[in-house]
Amino acid sequence: MSPGILRHPHFISLEGGEGAGKTSAITALREQLQARGHEVVLTREPGGTPLAERIRELILQPQGEALVPDTELLLVFAARAQHVQQVIRPALQRGAFVVSDRFTDSSYAYQGEGRGLDPAWIAELEKRVVGLQPSLTLLLDLDVREGRARTAGRDLWPDRIESEQDDFFERVRQGYRNRAAADPQRFRLIDASQSPQQVGESVRNAIWQWLETLDTLV
Amino acid sequence: MSPGILRHPHFISLEGGEGAGKTSAITALREQLQARGHEVVLTREPGGTPLAERIRELILQPQGEALVPDTELLLVFAARAQHVQQVIRPALQRGAFVVSDRFTDSSYAYQGEGRGLDPAWIAELEKRVVGLQPSLTLLLDLDVREGRARTAGRDLWPDRIESEQDDFFERVRQGYRNRAAADPQRFRLIDASQSPQQVGESVRNAIWQWLETLDTLV
Repeated sequence: MSPGILRHPHFISLEGGEGAGKTSAITALREQLQARGHEVVLTREPGGTPLAERIRELILQPQGEALVPDTELLLVFAARAQHVQQVIRPALQRGAFVVSDRFTDSSYAYQGEGRGLDPAWIAELEKRVVGLQPSLTLLLDLDVREGRARTAGRDLWPDRIESEQDDFFERVRQGYRNRAAADPQRFRLIDASQSPQQVGESVRNAIWQWLETLDTLV
Repeated sequence: MSPGILRHPHFISLEGGEGAGKTSAITALREQLQARGHEVVLTREPGGTPLAERIRELILQPQGEALVPDTELLLVFAARAQHVQQVIRPALQRGAFVVSDRFTDSSYAYQGEGRGLDPAWIAELEKRVVGLQPSLTLLLDLDVREGRARTAGRDLWPDRIESEQDDFFERVRQGYRNRAAADPQRFRLIDASQSPQQVGESVRNAIWQWLETLDTLV
């Protein structure tokens, strides 16, 4: 854990490439938390507020203009600053669980490993404008080609990120795996190449074990 | 001058509040440079590229959502990163003069002094994503109430920044004046309370003197 960054016990994120089954995992997570009587706020990045969703559109659909890597990174963190202050912190403060489809790890994976931006620079932004980390991050790990095959018919109009080449997504995947390996306390690596039933079971088990730990802490 | 930041001899910026006469000053500047046979690129911030202009819209018209100060700062620098890489650097590299209506000084004045954000944080962004300063900055300095009186009938639909209170603009003005005082080599302070004719004359004199210096350097 970095100095100056709070790891909040009720904050959970999901990370992973396209086709890895994040949506099903989020549903499982919500049901388990609600079954224990918790308020659950589901949100996503980039986005999570009306303004942050407008920033997301700029990132994914820049209308033909080549997006400078630093511009992409700053837009992602602009949306995140808004999301954290307007949605995530207020929800955590009233005792809710927050489950975010992607969070800061995605910046290290996509803009860091994917675009080649300096991770120290991303860490500086994280410290300055986020100051908050999930205490649990489920990484749905999947072979890049397998993920692409699964989503092949899904996106008639792929966005700018989805249109990147395989080597970009290989770097992103490796970036995620490196972060998970460096921080086993927070990350749970889920093998997303299993059947949807098996993935669901792995996700439920990971959450169940984490909730047990949480109960002994809180 | 900060380490790692290039002060380019053909790069000029204009700063100042509303109603200070920046538009007339830019016209005078363009005419003087063109009369000497230079290509002149006029541009503005936030903006200067189609994408950066869309970011400008988010900053000025966030459609009812309160903009977090860090979000505002990161959006401004996202637009600036795009503007510098796509417009300013290419123009300077082909030998043109670039005249920008506002540049990084406005972040120190508006987001730094105005919103209370740490100037060291703004300097970090300047170093990381801009790396470039004008060699001449004309600061059109004007009493806040006088500027407001001049623009009173102009904006039927004032944007989010224009709707700020006088104490905000007093801090912005002081922020600009402090920067000018700390860097007399780059700044020329123009008294914008004079008549338009006198302001035009002051601007032309400042530019003329600066061009003389430039000729002896280049």
